[in-house]
Parts: sequence; C-alpha cells; structure tokens
Amino acid sequence: MCKNHGVAYLEPGKVEVQEIDYPKLALGNRKCEHGVILKIVSTNICGSDQHMVRGRTTAPKGLILGHEITGIVIEAGRDVEFIKEGDLVSVPFNIACGRCRNCKEQKTGICLNVNPARPGAAYGYVDMGGWVGGQSEYVMVPYADFNLLKFPDKDQAMDKIRDLTLLSDIFPTGYHGAVTAGVGPGSIVYVAGAGPVGLACAASCHLLGAAVVIVGDMIPERLAQARSFGCETIDLRDKTPLADAIAEITGEPEVDCAVDCVGFEARGHGGDADKEMPATVLNAAMDITRAGGSIGIPGLYVTGDPGASTEAAKEGSLSIRLGLGWAKSCSFHTGQCPVMKYHRSLMNAILYDKIQIAKAVNVQIISLQESVQGYKDFDGGAAKKFVIDPHGMIPN
Amino acid sequence: MCKNHGVAYLEPGKVEVQEIDYPKLALGNRKCEHGVILKIVSTNICGSDQHMVRGRTTAPKGLILGHEITGIVIEAGRDVEFIKEGDLVSVPFNIACGRCRNCKEQKTGICLNVNPARPGAAYGYVDMGGWVGGQSEYVMVPYADFNLLKFPDKDQAMDKIRDLTLLSDIFPTGYHGAVTAGVGPGSIVYVAGAGPVGLACAASCHLLGAAVVIVGDMIPERLAQARSFGCETIDLRDKTPLADAIAEITGEPEVDCAVDCVGFEARGHGGDADKEMPATVLNAAMDITRAGGSIGIPGLYVTGDPGASTEAAKEGSLSIRLGLGWAKSCSFHTGQCPVMKYHRSLMNAILYDKIQIAKAVNVQIISLQESVQGYKDFDGGAAKKFVIDPHGMIPN
Amino acid sequence: MCKNHGVAYLEPGKVEVQEIDYPKLALGNRKCEHGVILKIVSTNICGSDQHMVRGRTTAPKGLILGHEITGIVIEAGRDVEFIKEGDLVSVPFNIACGRCRNCKEQKTGICLNVNPARPGAAYGYVDMGGWVGGQSEYVMVPYADFNLLKFPDKDQAMDKIRDLTLLSDIFPTGYHGAVTAGVGPGSIVYVAGAGPVGLACAASCHLLGAAVVIVGDMIPERLAQARSFGCETIDLRDKTPLADAIAEITGEPEVDCAVDCVGFEARGHGGDADKEMPATVLNAAMDITRAGGSIGIPGLYVTGDPGASTEAAKEGSLSIRLGLGWAKSCSFHTGQCPVMKYHRSLMNAILYDKIQIAKAVNVQIISLQESVQGYKDFDGGAAKKFVIDPHGMIPN
Amino acid sequence: MCKNHGVAYLEPGKVEVQEIDYPKLALGNRKCEHGVILKIVSTNICGSDQHMVRGRTTAPKGLILGHEITGIVIEAGRDVEFIKEGDLVSVPFNIACGRCRNCKEQKTGICLNVNPARPGAAYGYVDMGGWVGGQSEYVMVPYADFNLLKFPDKDQAMDKIRDLTLLSDIFPTGYHGAVTAGVGPGSIVYVAGAGPVGLACAASCHLLGAAVVIVGDMIPERLAQARSFGCETIDLRDKTPLADAIAEITGEPEVDCAVDCVGFEARGHGGDADKEMPATVLNAAMDITRAGGSIGIPGLYVTGDPGASTEAAKEGSLSIRLGLGWAKSCSFHTGQCPVMKYHRSLMNAILYDKIQIAKAVNVQIISLQESVQGYKDFDGGAAKKFVIDPHGMIPN
Repeated sequence: MCKNHGVAYLEPGKVEVQEIDYPKLALGNRKCEHGVILKIVSTNICGSDQHMVRGRTTAPKGLILGHEITGIVIEAGRDVEFIKEGDLVSVPFNIACGRCRNCKEQKTGICLNVNPARPGAAYGYVDMGGWVGGQSEYVMVPYADFNLLKFPDKDQAMDKIRDLTLLSDIFPTGYHGAVTAGVGPGSIVYVAGAGPVGLACAASCHLLGAAVVIVGDMIPERLAQARSFGCETIDLRDKTPLADAIAEITGEPEVDCAVDCVGFEARGHGGDADKEMPATVLNAAMDITRAGGSIGIPGLYVTGDPGASTEAAKEGSLSIRLGLGWAKSCSFHTGQCPVMKYHRSLMNAILYDKIQIAKAVNVQIISLQESVQGYKDFDGGAAKKFVIDPHGMIPN
Repeated sequence: MCKNHGVAYLEPGKVEVQEIDYPKLALGNRKCEHGVILKIVSTNICGSDQHMVRGRTTAPKGLILGHEITGIVIEAGRDVEFIKEGDLVSVPFNIACGRCRNCKEQKTGICLNVNPARPGAAYGYVDMGGWVGGQSEYVMVPYADFNLLKFPDKDQAMDKIRDLTLLSDIFPTGYHGAVTAGVGPGSIVYVAGAGPVGLACAASCHLLGAAVVIVGDMIPERLAQARSFGCETIDLRDKTPLADAIAEITGEPEVDCAVDCVGFEARGHGGDADKEMPATVLNAAMDITRAGGSIGIPGLYVTGDPGASTEAAKEGSLSIRLGLGWAKSCSFHTGQCPVMKYHRSLMNAILYDKIQIAKAVNVQIISLQESVQGYKDFDGGAAKKFVIDPHGMIPN
Repeated sequence: MCKNHGVAYLEPGKVEVQEIDYPKLALGNRKCEHGVILKIVSTNICGSDQHMVRGRTTAPKGLILGHEITGIVIEAGRDVEFIKEGDLVSVPFNIACGRCRNCKEQKTGICLNVNPARPGAAYGYVDMGGWVGGQSEYVMVPYADFNLLKFPDKDQAMDKIRDLTLLSDIFPTGYHGAVTAGVGPGSIVYVAGAGPVGLACAASCHLLGAAVVIVGDMIPERLAQARSFGCETIDLRDKTPLADAIAEITGEPEVDCAVDCVGFEARGHGGDADKEMPATVLNAAMDITRAGGSIGIPGLYVTGDPGASTEAAKEGSLSIRLGLGWAKSCSFHTGQCPVMKYHRSLMNAILYDKIQIAKAVNVQIISLQESVQGYKDFDGGAAKKFVIDPHGMIPN
Repeated sequence: MCKNHGVAYLEPGKVEVQEIDYPKLALGNRKCEHGVILKIVSTNICGSDQHMVRGRTTAPKGLILGHEITGIVIEAGRDVEFIKEGDLVSVPFNIACGRCRNCKEQKTGICLNVNPARPGAAYGYVDMGGWVGGQSEYVMVPYADFNLLKFPDKDQAMDKIRDLTLLSDIFPTGYHGAVTAGVGPGSIVYVAGAGPVGLACAASCHLLGAAVVIVGDMIPERLAQARSFGCETIDLRDKTPLADAIAEITGEPEVDCAVDCVGFEARGHGGDADKEMPATVLNAAMDITRAGGSIGIPGLYVTGDPGASTEAAKEGSLSIRLGLGWAKSCSFHTGQCPVMKYHRSLMNAILYDKIQIAKAVNVQIISLQESVQGYKDFDGGAAKKFVIDPHGMIPN
C-alpha cells in the first residue's frame, strides 16, 4: 500500500503536512465502486480555503484541505465504464452524483446525493459532505464517469498543466461570475476583487469579448497583476467614489455588468478600507451597474460566520440596499459555480491558446512541503495562485 | 375645451376628486406630437398608489394619481402614425420612448428618455418623471405608436373590459413575477401576498401551467379569494413555520419557485404579524425555495422610505440572509414589470378565455366620485380590485 | 427463471406475440450492472413503430418492438444506488448513459455511449443500438439511476396510470414540439397531424397557455378527438388553402408557431391528399407561420427510406422551400425529444390534474395478445392510443 | 438644393454612377418627418448587391443600390427628438419603424410597417419596400431616432471609420450567423464561405471566444485572407471529403457549430466545384456538425430565382437532407440579421480595439466613380471589401 501525505487544518492560522490514509473506494461505510483513485499531478490553494484557515468557519481540527485537483487515474472501481487507468483528468471541485434532479439540470453545485446536510458537496471543505480533500498525493473521486474531464492528449496537457490545473475551480468560477452577470462582446464590466477568482473572472471577461474590464482591489500588487493582461484598475483605498473612478476610465459613471469576486470578508471602500463591511461590494455593485444590469456573485457568502463583527453577520444577514437594486431592475445570481457546465469549453480555450489563464492569475508551482508557507503568503495578499505539485511531476 | 376631473393626493390618508386641467400634447415645455389624448374608459387603483397615500413616500400635495389606464383615442399628435382616433387601447403604466437603448431591449420599465431623475417613468407617481396621472376623465399618453396596445375589436373588448383593464399593470406585473421566478408547467410555487398583484400572479402561475400554487397572506378574505380559483393558501398569522405549512400541502417543505408580491411594507410572520419587518418576505422566500430556484420580486422596494421604522430601512437597506440564498444558489429578479413585453400575449389569453383575471382579483367597478371610498376600503384590506369608470361607459 | 413474451416484427404488415428471452443485466457481451429488470405495467404502441411495421425502414425480422415503457423494478444491478426494487417508474424511450457530453447537457436523445452506429438509442427500434424492445412482460433498462423517473406514490400513480404511461414518449414528444416552436401564453398555434403525438402536442399547447390551438389532419375521427378537448380543426382534404382556413378561425391567415407532428410519410393537402408528398407539412408550416416564428419538428424524418417514391426521398432529401423560410426569418428545430428534460414537470402536471392527457389522446388499454389487432387498427387511422397491459395490472 | 449622385443598376452585369434626386423627407406620398437626411461618409458594396447585378433577381432597371451606410446628419425631420444635426451615425441596413410588434421584439429585420409587400425592408434592394439606396452622396433615413446608432465621439469614430462602416451590415450579419449557430468560448466552428460576410463571421467567432475557426472556400486569395487573422482554411475544390479535411485540423471529423455564409448561389464541393448546387452548403453543414448542433444561415436564400438551373430552385425550393439533420437533432436559423440587436455592442468592440474587422475583411476605400470597377472586381472574387467614400472624407 502506498503512503499518502496531505495538508491538514489544525487551528486558526495553522496548517501542516501530515501522513494521512491512502484513499479507498469508499466514503465511510458507503462503497464507491463508481469512484477512482487519482495520483495527484497538481492541486491548488484556494481563497475559500483561507476562510477556514482564518477561523471564519466551523472547520474541524484535522480536516484535510484541498478541492482543486488534477491527476492521473491509477485505480478505477468496477462500475467505472468510460474513464480508464492512465487517464489524465480534471476534477470539478463540486462532487456530484450525475443521477439526481439537479445534476440532470447541470446544477452540479447543488447535487442532492453527496451531502446529507444540504445540497452540494466538495472535497476537503467544512459542511460540504465530509469528503477527504486533495492537497495530498492521492485522493478518491466518486462518480468518476460523470465527474471527470479527461484531457484528450496527455503530453499536450502536461505542457499546459499550469493552465489546465485551474479548470477544477477558479477559472470556471470566475467565468461563471462573468456569464451570470451577462458579460458578452462589447460589455463594460466591473470586477470587484483581484484575488485569483477576480483575476480569472477578468480574463474570462476578455475571453467573452468584453470591451473594457475594470478591476477594483486594495492591494497594489494584485492590481498590477490585473493590468498585466489588459485590465483597467481602481485602487479602492482611494477616496474617489467608485462611480467617478469608473467615469475617469470610460467617460460614464456606470458599467453594463458587475461581478462580486470578494464575498463576505469584504472591507469598506475609501476611508473605510480597514473595516470589514460585508455588504460593501454588493451595495457598490448596485450603485455602479446600469439599470437593467445583472450582478454575478461568485464570491462566497456563508450561512454562519463565527468570526463576524455583528450578530446579523454571524447569521449571514447583510444590510443590503435592495431598494436601489429594485429601482434599477437589477438581477442577482449567487452560488457555487457548477464547474462541469463550463470546463470542457474552457479546456478548449486553453488548449487552442485563446487564453493564458495561468499567467493572468500568476501561477506559482510549489511542493507539498511548501504549501504551509504558501497559505501564509496567500493570506498576506500575495498576487499569486499557489499550485502544489505533490509528486514533482510538473516541468519547469 | 372639455372639462376634466381627477383623483388628487392631498396628505397622508387623504385623496379627493378635483377639477383638473384638460390634457395637452405636451409635458411642461416639451412638446409631445408623438402623443395622444385618451378619453378614459377604465382606470384602476393600485397597491403602489397606497404607498403614496399612506405617506410612505415624498409624493407632493396635489399629485394627480393613477397609472393603470385604458381608453379611447380622441386626439392624436402629428407624429402618430399607426394609432388612430377611435382606437380602444391599453396603456402600459411604464412610460417609454421606444428609441433608447433600454426600450430597444424590451426594458421599457427603465426607459432613459422620460424621466430626468432616473431610468423609468410612470403616470401619476412620485419620482417617476412628473407625468400627470390617469385616475381622471382624460389623460395624455406620449409616444403613442410605441406605448399603446390596440384591442383588435372594440365591441368584443368592451365586453371583456373588466379583464382587459388589468393589462395596464397588475396582470403583467404578477405574470412577470411568475416568469422571472421560473414558473412553468408542473411547477410548485409559493406566492407571497394575496393583494391584487399576488392574486394576478397566482392566476398567471396557473396560466403558465403550474401544478400547485400556494398563496400566503394575513387577511382571511384575500386568502378566500385565492382559494376561489384553485390556489392553496397559508394564513401567515399562524405560528406554523412556513416550510411546515407547505409540507402539509405538498408533502415537501420546499417549493420550486417563489414570488414576492408584498414588497417593503411587509410584516413579520406568525407571532410577529403585527410588526413591520421589511425583509421578512425575502428571507422566507430563500428559506422555502429549493436549491437552484429563482425568486421573482415584483413587490416594490424603495430607495427612500420616510415612514420606515429603522434608519437603514429609511434608506431602503434591508437585513437580508444572503448567505442562505448563496448556499442554495438562488437568483433574484427585481424591478418594475416591463408591461409591453407581455401585454399582447396576455390580451390573447383574455380574449380567448384562457384566464378569468377579473374574477381572480375580484374587480369592482366604481365611479370617479367613489374612488375616495375605494382608496379607504382597499387600504383596509378589502379583497377587491377597484376599477374606476369615469364616464360610466362600462356595462354591468 | 420467469417466462417472457413480446411483440415481434416479422415482415411488412405483420407482427406477432412470441415467447422471448427473459432479460439479463447485459447487452450482448456488455454487462449492465447499472441496469434494472422491470416487470412491465404498461407499454404503448407508437406511431413510429408503424414506420417499421409498414416496411418503411430496414428493421430486421424478429425485432422485439416497443419503446414506451412503464414498470416496476424487480431486480437492480449492483451499481444502481437510488432506484430500489418495488419502485414504479417511467422509462424515457431514449436510452442514455448520463455520463457523456450530450447527456450532461440534457441532450439525452443523442447520447454518445449507447449506440455504436450513431448518437442516440431506443428500445426495440431499427438502427437505434440493438436494445431489446419493451412491448413485452419484462425488459432490461440500463443506467437505471439516470434514466428512470420514479413516481412518488405508487397507489396514486396506479390510479393515473393511463396518463402516466404517456410520459415515456408521446406526451414529452408533443410537448417538445410545442416548446421548440415557442408556444407560450397567448400563442396562436398550428399543429400538423392529429395522431397521438399531434394530440399530445395540442394538449401540451393548452398546458403552456396557448390561446388558440388549430389541428390539421385528414381523418375525421382524429379531428373530432382534437375538438373534444377544445382545439379548432382543419380537414386537410378540403381544397381551401390552409392560410384561408386559419383566417376563418382567427381572422388572420397566419399563426405564431407551427408544429410538424406528421413527419416524412406526409401526404399532400387538398387535391393531393392521396399522394405522398414528404415536404408538404414543412412547406405549409413555413407558409402559415408569421415572420420570425419557429417551427418545431417532432415528426420523424429519416436518413434512409426504402419505401419512398423518389430517389431523393429514399436518401431522406426533401424539396423544401427554404427561400420562403429564410425570407420570414424562421427557425427550425428537429430531432427526437429528450424525454428526461421534461418528464418530471409533466408528471406533476398529471398528478395535480392540470392536464388530462390520456383523454386527449384517447387511450385504450389492451392485452399483449390484442396488440396484433392494435397495430392494425392504429395503422387504419383509429383515433386511439393503444396501451398494452401485459400483466393485467391496470384497473378499469 | 444640393446635387446628388448614386450607383444605379442598369441590366445584368452593368451598373453606372448617375446624377440622382437629392433626398426628401418622404417616401412617395408618405411623409417622413421622423427621418433625417445624411451626408454619406462611407457606403459599402455588399455581396447581396451582386445577386441583383448578376441578374439573379427581378431588380428593376434604374434601381439606386446600396444599403450599408454611415453618414453625418445634415437635416432632421421635425419629429426627430434624440438625433441631432452633425451627429455621425451608422445606419442598419434593415429599415424598421420601432413601433410594430416585431420591432418591439428586436426583430427589426422583419418590421411590419416599412414594406407593403412583406415583412422587412432595406435601402436600395429589390422587393424590399422601394426605399432609395445609399451608394450615393446623400440619402434619407426614416425613423431616425429608432434606427440610427450615434458614435459617441466623432473624431475617434473618423479614425476608425474603416471598421465602423462595417456595422451597417456585414459585421453584425456575420456575427448573427455565429450567434445563432451557438458559437461561444471554446467552440470548434466551420464557416462556409470566405467572402466578406464569411470573413466577418470568422472574426466574430474569434470575438466570441471560439477555439478553432475553420473557413471553407474555393478562392485561394480569400482563404489566404482568412488565414491572415488566425483561421484554419479548407479549399473546397479539393476532393478530400469535408469531414476528413476537418479531422486533419482538429483530430475529429465534426465541428460544434456551422455557419452558412454562402447562400443560394453555392457551388458543389470537390469535383462539382464548377456546378451550381444550391443545397450543397446546407447539406455539408448537416454532415459535419455534431449531433445537437445548430446551423446559422446568414447566407441569402430567395423566394424566387429567375437565373436558377432547375424549376424547383427557381421557386426557392432546395433538395435538403432533412432526414440527416433530424437524426442529429440539429436546429436551423435563417433570415436577415436584425442589425440593431448587435450594433452597439460591436461598436464597443471596435472602439476598444477588441477586433480589427476592417483588416479581417480587407477593406479597400474607393471613390464613387470607382464603384463600377469595384463591382466588377468583387464579382471576380477579389478578397476585398469595397467601401465607397463619396465625399473624399476618409483619411488615408
């Protein structure tokens, strides 16, 4: 039996690499003959992992983290029919059965059969069904025929693995935000947040043909990263009202579409940049989106936030200027990205060089041991997307 | 020159019928050669008029009310090409130019050319462009070729005028709520509110093929009205949690789609039924809508509410459980119904007897003089839709 | 081992009931651990079976017919997780894996994994993958978790089994035609053909809120059946041009939407009613559909027709007035209905009494032995939908 | 009164520049106070003009050609409200009233009020309402508030006039073909035809994010033009079957989407390249499009073609392999592009440098006098888009 190591959450601010169980084709007592064991080629640190590591959730001690996984199939359950040993595959972070009403409607982010507590599951995430995470050497993936995206040519895929590794979550997640906001050819878009999801969203807006992509953030390095691939940027620490800052760029104080890539740990703008103000981004989005526009919300909002500053926010309630949104006939689109809806198309966009997504989000490859430092640097606002290479398989 | 009389708002709680100016083809100094003068056949009192009359807005003294208008063309401006004198027409409550970007995209509720203050205008409504209302004998309608829906046969139309009068606002508004909530054949729907818009929405759900339409309200007569055309009902004064009350009807504690036909003057459910709790309806809707569902919000939310009970609500900010909606991947659709998008289809549904919308909302015809009493009765919760017949033209 | 009997195609014009193999969880050498064995409760004769029986296809002698199946699960393969023995289920006629690109996009009519020859498969049908048909006592259904629709309450379902049996094909097929033609509230629709699919389409149009549903056919009994549930009808043997006949009904010579429920065995209209003219229905549909309208084509067109009257038609080529359609900006929607996209919603519409589909298509229950006569009567134009009850389980 | 000159059709193969009437705000006896007079800045020769000039239509002698117009407003009718003298505007080739049912639904290609003979009109085109064409110095545009797209900054627009002139027809037309074929990020697309519309379609596919755009034609210069901006190409004179040629490029013998940018004057492929075979392109498109795909048909098909080689084709009937399309569940989208639906977005794409459409279609500026030669060269297959500059206003 092979050994296995993975990144475990210990307590707020602390993760470590531990020896962990080698995966079985099972979840608890439940057999997973429809599953496969993957040797992990790449596995990324995600901003939503940070919510757990910062103690903003009820994640249990010892949780093995990681839901952005790409790997090679080394064992397949006996009921797996179309995925074969040796296939190099991308794993959508949402675990989905492919057999329930929601999966049949492409809503794999809210599968009804993989989490007894609520619709939707993910690897290595609090409240998401208890599935073991994949910031490790090996992991089990259930319903493999349904979930996995096989890369058509393994060598070609290894050459582009820095890009393809982003198909498991942030590229589709950013793209989903853009799509639900109605971004298309000629759109003027505002993307709130220049973390990896915000940058992936901005790059997706370009892929979708947007005319102007404006990215707002408070970290200069992240804004510089956005500018590196053709975005306009706004430093939200400035006291210029957001609408005015937009007008300086386009001549108009509003945008066609807005995407919230920040979520509930948002801070105030301008003079309030040091205060956590969880509804800031949404209220700003309503303010600067033109009447009739849509607001995509891939940024995470939670049902319970033990670290919130107000009682309301602890229950996930935010003070939202709904009257403003209503007066402008806005619509709002929330929830986890159903990765499967998009990953095949986005894979093609990568394979045929229509997007350089790894460059856009500034991928940095690290070893499994370096992941502890990666978590720290990312929490500090590094303008990087850390990709763990647990077996040293990724070429320089 | 003909005389004209109309319903004027005087002060909170008080309206009166006054002699008013006979309309001209103009708005202030702006000429309206694209407009027509209508002799009004029917003009309805709307729940949103009540917001003004109850003093929950900044409506000025002397405002002539009324935005639900049906009438006969008696004079047409020189730019009017396709509407003729003698035509019997329905007037969408949203005033729209037909020439701006939004109108071209069927978003007539947020026309850019008819209100200097913000996108969107209406007759006789605060902050909606200063257009004179139509609870009167005569009114001017601009951009007549674009705005008006001509009934194909005048005699047939007069026979169904109780139904057709609802095309100017509440039938499309209720329908829009249902459509944006994703209602279709086989849907299980919850409609919050059994006022005229709620009842019109419920009837629209049936027209759209819904399997079960559940209506919640606190006024027994309104619930009885909902039951009269095949809806299930829930009395929100009961302390049974809403999800449980739904499960008693369908066996499941959730619905496919929810529509908020209440808006910002909502009260709490159960034990809080006597308190105004403006976010109650939306939070309840998120609670009982299945994951992946949409929430239609035709109920009015305002940018400023001088009569609100909290500072936040005075600015239109509500404490919304967005985290819950996000976890369920809900989407939210707000804003005024763009009546023109729907009125022709719904006219056909009336003319070919596919819906009995007047019966569903319990139309009662009154004279212009009786409108003062109509406002009072409606404010008291009468399960009726008052339709003013200013010229005594509507047959019994 | 149980015995099994089924309806076999012998030669043009001839079917018989034979003793056949009891099903196994396999297809040829391929194991089907994801499958179940059903005891068939009801199984319908379909118009598309007639194409084979009339010798208009290359169906092989001995083919066991039947693709409209409802049954009780009596054995489940080891990979079946959510369907249990004893469940009463509807079987979509399209066999689908639930794991390929098309199935993931709700295009179960063109599954890539169930037919080596081309996308898409069905039970008991020529060129559709070699799966054994279900006009029999027992049948095997693969990918059971994905394919099957379980009725929530078995007793309730048996009470409505005449309606629910139509969920496996013709109700969704007719509905798909209406949906792809753009039928909605207030639509004026023309449905070509009053066979079971045409009648199911017409009833679906009503469910979708259509204002006027006009059905054309050449068999008076079928037209009478259409009138029995509120349709207008046109006898296509009459020499009145179709547009004029429509104008007599609605006052206008065109419709909003048209649905072709006839397919390639169409005859000419009026004086050409005795000639097979395979493009008649489509050309007529273009003629009478208003500019900008859509044409739904659930009626079957084939790639090869050995019985066709011209060389072109033998290869499935038809002389279509595309120039006319182009001038009117029409769109055309072809192909097998992906039943799974609709069956759950339509089940709700049945269970909550929103449609009486069995009455609309005039279901007649027959025994397995009577199916031979059923084929003959149906071929003769009987205005009936024959439903075989192989185990005598359907209550009167 | 100013003088005016324009390009007149004389007889098959012959056009000339004539002195013509200076436009009035009228059409025949009908006044057009909603219209404007334009001084034309640029006006393009279109492939559909060639159909007339080649004698393939019933265009009358003396018809002033030209429907791709950009100009400066020099006089505005008294009912024009939002367009001002001096505005630099793009004119959609489809004339539309903005007041009928179709215009309200964004279907401006089939406006009901501008052509007594059928829905839809255009400037200078046979059977399209009798409006005077705009390959001239001055032209009248009706319903100016509705029809015209004003460029926000005149100087900026003159700098990009080679690109912006394509907004009146071929850029939106090619784009519409791509959109209706379902092209989006990651798509593999086949574009039939490398004339200006085909090239505009191919460039639009890139704008929409397509992964691979394959263009087929028979003229080497046009194919070279397609390769110049990143397309793959197939020479249709080769005898390699089209599916095989596609497989050589992508590894698969099929594409996700196909667009027919050729229309009814198509020739056969391979050995039949010298024969006119009007259904070739559509039949090939069905052959190589994957099951479930859509086929966009911006290429023109006509209701009557006096020059066709068969009686059927003279009436616009083509022998189409509908059975093949049906077996693959294809859908087909025909008709003139409703330019207004797209021109604002595409203008933004040009102004913000997201597309170099003039380069893609190889714009060549010519004088009005050179237009006669331009028609000849274009008919000969020149890989150019000729743009007439009647006043010598376009900078080099």
